Order: sequence, then structure tokens, then C-alpha cells
Amino acid sequence: MGDESSAWRTAITEVKPNELRLRGYRLDELMGHISFAEAAWLVITGELPPQPIRPLVEALLACSVDHGVTPPSAQAARLIASTGGNLSQAVAAGVLSINASHGGAIEGCMHALHRGVEIEEQQGLAPAQAAKALLDQLKSEGKRIPGYGHRLHTADPRTARLRELARASGVYGKFMELADAVEEHFSAQGRPLPLNVDGAMGAVLCELGVPPEISNGFFILPRVAGLIAHFAEERSREKVMRRIDPAQAVYDGPPPRELPKGVGR
Amino acid sequence: MGDESSAWRTAITEVKPNELRLRGYRLDELMGHISFAEAAWLVITGELPPQPIRPLVEALLACSVDHGVTPPSAQAARLIASTGGNLSQAVAAGVLSINASHGGAIEGCMHALHRGVEIEEQQGLAPAQAAKALLDQLKSEGKRIPGYGHRLHTADPRTARLRELARASGVYGKFMELADAVEEHFSAQGRPLPLNVDGAMGAVLCELGVPPEISNGFFILPRVAGLIAHFAEERSREKVMRRIDPAQAVYDGPPPRELPKGVGR
Amino acid sequence: MGDESSAWRTAITEVKPNELRLRGYRLDELMGHISFAEAAWLVITGELPPQPIRPLVEALLACSVDHGVTPPSAQAARLIASTGGNLSQAVAAGVLSINASHGGAIEGCMHALHRGVEIEEQQGLAPAQAAKALLDQLKSEGKRIPGYGHRLHTADPRTARLRELARASGVYGKFMELADAVEEHFSAQGRPLPLNVDGAMGAVLCELGVPPEISNGFFILPRVAGLIAHFAEERSREKVMRRIDPAQAVYDGPPPRELPKGVGR
Amino acid sequence: MGDESSAWRTAITEVKPNELRLRGYRLDELMGHISFAEAAWLVITGELPPQPIRPLVEALLACSVDHGVTPPSAQAARLIASTGGNLSQAVAAGVLSINASHGGAIEGCMHALHRGVEIEEQQGLAPAQAAKALLDQLKSEGKRIPGYGHRLHTADPRTARLRELARASGVYGKFMELADAVEEHFSAQGRPLPLNVDGAMGAVLCELGVPPEISNGFFILPRVAGLIAHFAEERSREKVMRRIDPAQAVYDGPPPRELPKGVGR
Repeated sequence: MGDESSAWRTAITEVKPNELRLRGYRLDELMGHISFAEAAWLVITGELPPQPIRPLVEALLACSVDHGVTPPSAQAARLIASTGGNLSQAVAAGVLSINASHGGAIEGCMHALHRGVEIEEQQGLAPAQAAKALLDQLKSEGKRIPGYGHRLHTADPRTARLRELARASGVYGKFMELADAVEEHFSAQGRPLPLNVDGAMGAVLCELGVPPEISNGFFILPRVAGLIAHFAEERSREKVMRRIDPAQAVYDGPPPRELPKGVGR
Repeated sequence: MGDESSAWRTAITEVKPNELRLRGYRLDELMGHISFAEAAWLVITGELPPQPIRPLVEALLACSVDHGVTPPSAQAARLIASTGGNLSQAVAAGVLSINASHGGAIEGCMHALHRGVEIEEQQGLAPAQAAKALLDQLKSEGKRIPGYGHRLHTADPRTARLRELARASGVYGKFMELADAVEEHFSAQGRPLPLNVDGAMGAVLCELGVPPEISNGFFILPRVAGLIAHFAEERSREKVMRRIDPAQAVYDGPPPRELPKGVGR
Repeated sequence: MGDESSAWRTAITEVKPNELRLRGYRLDELMGHISFAEAAWLVITGELPPQPIRPLVEALLACSVDHGVTPPSAQAARLIASTGGNLSQAVAAGVLSINASHGGAIEGCMHALHRGVEIEEQQGLAPAQAAKALLDQLKSEGKRIPGYGHRLHTADPRTARLRELARASGVYGKFMELADAVEEHFSAQGRPLPLNVDGAMGAVLCELGVPPEISNGFFILPRVAGLIAHFAEERSREKVMRRIDPAQAVYDGPPPRELPKGVGR
Repeated sequence: MGDESSAWRTAITEVKPNELRLRGYRLDELMGHISFAEAAWLVITGELPPQPIRPLVEALLACSVDHGVTPPSAQAARLIASTGGNLSQAVAAGVLSINASHGGAIEGCMHALHRGVEIEEQQGLAPAQAAKALLDQLKSEGKRIPGYGHRLHTADPRTARLRELARASGVYGKFMELADAVEEHFSAQGRPLPLNVDGAMGAVLCELGVPPEISNGFFILPRVAGLIAHFAEERSREKVMRRIDPAQAVYDGPPPRELPKGVGR
């Protein structure tokens, strides 16, 4: 290290010869004792997930692994694969498409929920009232609440499962209550606009204390797995420089199948 | 879908209204029953990891989550964060730095091990002999075997742990034997060049039947978690446009700590 | 083309077999008759630059071609080159570093100047008064005006030259007057904060009617030339995976030299 | 600068307070005296283009500025723009799609032409004979010569113009002769496979002494201008997250028009 004045600090990983510590824990000790998702959570948030929320953390990441060929991220990865680009290039281009309109509703919904819970607490409101107050405020600013509605799913199975796991993990609190109250408000007004998976992820991440600023990372990280799969499939099954129209894709993978016995805890 | 002629096939994810299936399994059923790593493995390789190798798969991914501020990927992510770039940009730039000389030894080592095992089987050699034959062949072509030696670690704790978990999982076979025989060969020649973590990952991925062409994905995916952490830390602790010299970084995170009771299976 | 409903419009390039037209002009006719910069201007803005501003357009782009090894874009390109990444990857990573704090002052300055000229016109002020009013407004919002001050240059030679060429081209108008008035205001207050090259580019682009939203393109485009040069130099002169400290670089290129006779118009 | 041991060299740009020199020339002196293309050529190749080849250099870059909405680079830029990504992200993703199968024929053709001219010189052959020998060699290796044939253009107007300008510039030499001889060979065999614009660029760059390793930069650089135009158009004319099918695009820009009087030299 040089002069003190140019030193700077990092609290993520301590690297010494033959010793690596993530947030204080020996990496080789973590290996085999915790899951990859727990290691990712540790490095991103600074702490291991407490035991009760572990299944929720695994599911939170698992739910974004892939959504077929239509999302812009899958299209971008395949487009680059099709030009002869390598895996790093394809994944990078896919990641570059994760923005406000693709994945970004997680962060947007978190900001809205934080604001709504603040209103709720300051004004001593019930969730239904806070939902109405929040939506009124947003409307007066010409804004909509992110995380509601989906072009394809009217009852997203991922949302239902995240709700269920959040309840089972004991973290279903003010943020999730408010998120649900917003959905009910829309429904009561005769225009059903269900909480989508981005919104549900946002609500869960609020409950888990994750800052909105890095929340999109919990979409980017798992989706990289899907991007790798799309790269591999494009390379192994298709000719280069083909016209890739996602609307023309037909699924020909394994037929519907049940989870084998012994999977799960 | 349009005319039949322009249809193409995908075997990854089947998307229908309110139903999502990864490689045939309902995603909402997977959530809560399998881990994120298992979901990632499923989507990339096409099948769930068999029960005995699950801890190995978790560790294989966990071991690459982060390696501090010096790797080019961490530097690239911080550099972009420091210019005001967003999370997608920082992660993408980090991923773009994962190439032949950073992470790429995984694929290179796999190709070498496949070649060595072919020699071994064709000529009916013992691992030690096959190691020598392989290294002689590579030398005659002016090449070195990737996956050996590390600028910092002489006995990488991650390598030791991967070996141990591979044995415990019952997948320590010809590829890992050969990888170890190569290390012993170097050692016997008086120039110790230990199997590094890239090489160990490559050997494990050979045993697990993963194609070398996508092997770097098993480094890219987990390292994205580290990139997110570096982005977050750069943004929260540093001024923009600072000069980032990794050699000047000092670790100030949690002191060495033991895994809490109850962690691990 | 399919059904009318899914058709969309593009006004950039018309492509037919053996015929290519950029904004209406035959590309092969443009080749040899106009410069690359004019072609780039045509495709981005929709029209060829009028004759009098051609030297200014050439200079506007030429001034951003390179700024040595310290800018984040050069560092990012070299970092990726050093890992074995290809030219596309290195250039892309360099481009990803062009953000609010690196190049982005062009757009920020343009927004401020547009606002200042609006104040000037609405309130019938002289440039000096408008400069004061603008800075007061920004200050009251806790903001600073982008495009002033430089960590290295106190009298940036590029700024001086852009001013001179803008005058010679007859486009030195309200925006440039205001930009200069702001500089004079700082100076009169005893804290000299000269218009930097980003600010000067922003002022020129305001005069030329370019929308602020795409103004950073006039920095990205020319800097790509520099990124290519840094990639080529890193690859041809340096070892892979070296520690790249821009503060340690020494210039060893051609010594100062005069433009040869016959160069220039 | 620190200790001598860690110093490294750069020959591109010398940066001092208030003084910037590109390859030895003062940047502010270049501004207004040389074109942007000349500045780009200087920084990439190390020298200003000699006077006679200047129109050729301008045309070489101008010819790649854009090719409408179908190339992968335009699609990638629009895809990212459509997700809410910023200009840097969109341009970077576009650049990432410039690979072996998109733009990469320039480098491939250059390697083939260098090899062909070597055969020609070693064996004292005429261009027609060298063309045949080269193609026979490539065929015996199971390879095709890059830079010939186009999915759309049977007589690419850009190729014709580059040939014409190369002749007029006095640089039509062995490489271009060989490139033409290869085309004639295909034609004589009854399967016309015309030199495409990538091949013509490659031949010109061979004549100009540019190393094949950086040749794709002469496609990346100008195409960035087109990417900026596609980003701007996508943002100003289209809704976010639309399905972008390039086959559905209709040109609605300026109708065919003649170059105005006074344009060109």
C-alpha cells in the first residue's frame, strides 16, 4: 500500500494469501455449509440471511431465473450470440436491457411502498386507507404505481408463491399488506390490476430491509442464469445471423413434469 | 405464431398465461422447494442436480461470488459506478472483463482435461502417465495447461474444499484424478504449480458433464453478486470520478468471525 | 411486410437491393463528396451541415477524439483488453463509462443554457444579468452549473478553439454569449471557473440546434476512435492481466511536431 | 509518477495542463485544420493520412455509418432504448453485436488477402492465378473467403465507389487486384459472388497498411453514428417495451434527393 492519503476502504472481501473471507466468514468454510443464494445475499447485504427467511431468499431469486424468449434481455443475449459474440458479450448485452421498463418496476414499487408506509405511519391509517392516499398522491403527480399489471399474466403464480412464502417466513408485514391493499383498491374500483412479480419482489425486499437502489440486482443476478441458457441454446440450435422473432418461437422442451420425490425440504 | 417456415424452437421455458414452466417444472412449484442454485442449474443444464451433488453445486457457485477489489471485473464495475453509470451498466462492464485471462481458465482447463482423459483411455495409461503425456503434448505445441498457479494463493482454500466436496459427493473421477496428477507432476519436477480455483472448477464441471463452451457461465453468474456489492459500496462510500487504485484498498469490514450455530445442513 | 397494424416507421436509411439512401441521399454519391463527419451529422440530425459550419462540425468531433490514459473510458477499454477481451468488448466497456460525470456535462450544460436563454428572453435581460439570474436559480436549488472547471486545464485550448471557430462560422449567438457571461461572472467573483470543453461543446450544440438528449453522442462517437487506439496499444505493448495505474503512464510517442504544409483548408 | 518499475508507456496522447497533443500534434491546432476523420485516423494509426488518400479515408468511414434497422447492431441499440436504457447503454449493446458475423468479414478478408498476396509474390503468380491458388487452399481447409456475397445487394454501390476512390487515390494495388480477381474467379465459375462492402473495406485497409487486428474499428467507429440515430428515433417515435420486428419497418424519411450544389470538393 502506498501513502495513507490515497488509501480507501472496502468492507466486502478480505483477501490474504491462502485466506479469503466474505464479510468476515472464511469462504472455504461457507462452501458446503451455506447455499449459493446465501453467499450472494451475504456479499450483497453484508449479513447471512437469518434461518427463517432462507427459503424465501432462495425463492426470491429462483423466480427470476427465466421467462422464455420474449423479454428484451433474452432477445439481446440471443442477438449477440447470433453475430458470433462470446458468452461475456451476450450476457453483458442482456444485462444492459434490464432497465426502468424491464425489471425496473422492482425499485419503483419499493419507493412507492416506502412512501405509502410513511403516510400510513404518519397519519395513523389502516392499509386500505394508506393505499388510497398513496394512489391519490401519485395520481396528482401524474404517476402510476409500478409493479401492478402484466401483459400476459392476470394471476401470476410467482406472486402467489412469494406471498405464501413471505407469510410462512414471518416477514409478511406493513409493506406486503400495503401492496395487497393497493391491489384490492384497484379491484374494488372495477379495474383489476394484480400485483405482478416485480411488485411482489419489491414488497418482499422492503420487508427484508434491502435498499431500493440495489434491488434490481435481485433481478439481474438470477436472470443471468437464463441468459446463459439462451446463449447456449442459440449457439447449439440456430444458424448465425438469423432473423430472431420471439413471436415465432415454439416450445419443444420437456413436457410438463412433476417434481421428483425427495426434492425440497 | 406466423407461418410455419419461420417458427423456431426453444426448450428452456414454456410461458402461458398464469403458467410458467422451467424445463417442464412449474416455476411456482420449484419456488420454496428447490434452491436458487438448483433453479439456475436446471435452466442452464436442462435437469435438476441429482440429490448427492447438490452441496457441490452450491459450493461450486458460492466459491466465485467475490475476490475483493483487485479482479478486473470488480475494477470495471467500480469504474463505471464512479462515472455515474447505473447498476446495469456497472454489472455489464464487469461481465465484459470475464475473458480468457480472467475466469477463462475454467474452459481452457476443461478442454485440456478432456484431451488428457482421452489419451488416458486410448492408451490405457495411469493418471500420472496421462498427466505427463498431456503436458508433453501441450509443451510440443508451445502451450501451457490453464488452471494451475495463482499470483497470490499457493494453496487455494477453495480448491481444497472443492476437492473435498467432490469426493463427498461421489463425483471424484477420472477428470479430477488427472487434474491432481498434473499438480503432482509439477511438484515432482520441483516447480510447484498448484491447481487453482479455476482449474478445480473446470475439473468438477468435467465430472458433472457440463460442456466447456458454457463453463465460464459458472463463474460469470456468481461473480455478478460480487459486482452488485462493489457497485453498491462504490456508490455509498466514495466520491464520483475518483482515482481507483485497487492496490490502495484497505479492508475495514467485519473482523474474522465463525459461522453461527445452525448454519449449514 | 406483415399486417399493417404492426408496421412502424423509420426515417434514417432506406435500404433497397443495390441502393442505399441516408436521409434521402444516395450513400454511394455521398462517398467521396462529403466527409465522414458530415455523414455522421446527416444520419444523426437528419440534414447535412450547412457549408459555413462544416469546419466547426469537424472540430467539434475532433476535439473529443482522445484525452490520454486517465479518463475512465480509456481505463475501461484497457482493462478489458488486458483480460483478453476483443475489440467490441473493450469499446463497449469504454462507452459504458460515458455518463453524468464523464462527458455528461455536455447535456447538463445544454439544459442550463437553454434555461438561461429562456430567462434572458422572458425578462429582457443582458447576458451578464441572465448569467447571474441563472446561477442564482441553480444555487437556490442546491445545484451547480455543469461544464465549468477542469481538474487539469485552467485555460483549455479546446475551449478557446471552439469559441474561435464558432465565431468564424457565424454561429456565436445567445447560448455562447451566455456561456461566456457565466465564466465572466465567476471570474468577477474572484473564483475563476473557466468554461471547459464539455461546456463549450454544449454551447456550440445549443447554437446548432441539437437536442440535449442526444448531445452526449457527440462525445461518445469521437471517443470511440481513442478507445480503439488504447485497445490496440494495450494489446501490442503490454502483458495481459497487468495492474494498470494511469498515474504511472509516461508518454513516449512522437515529440511535439508542427502540422505539415498543405494540411488544412 | 511512482517508482520507475511500475511506469508504463503510451504513445497516443500527451496531456499537460492547458496542452494536449495527439501523436505529437497540438489538438487545438488540428481543430479547424483537419477533419474529424483525419483526427480519428491519426489517433488510431499514428499518422495523418497523406493528402491523396484523404477522400478515400472519409469515404471508407462514411460508407458504414448506417444500414437501416435490420443489422443486429441497430436492433440491439433499439432494444435497449426500448427498455428505458440510456444512450451509453444502447450504443454499447450495439457495439457488442459487431462480431465475426456482423462487420467481422473485414478482418477475415484482410487475413485472406494478405495470405493470397504472399502466395502471389512467393510463387510469382498473376492475380488470377493467385486468386485460384488462395481459394483452393482455403477450400482444402474447409474454409470460405470472407467478404464476398450479400443477402441483399448483388452489386453493392458502396463497393463500386470504394474501388473508384481507391483508383483515384492511387492506392489500387496488389490487394485490391487480388480481391477483384477472386470475384472474377467466382463469376467465371458461373456462381457470381460479388465483393461486398466488408470485403472492399478490407482490401482498401490492406492497401493502406492497417493491421487486420484493428480493422473492425473502422466499422465500429462510423456505425456508432447510426446507433445514436436509432436510439434517438426509437425514443422519440416509439412506446417503451414494444415488439421490434425489423421486417415490419417502413421508411418514411425524406424522399430521394440530390446532393445540393456546392457539396463536395
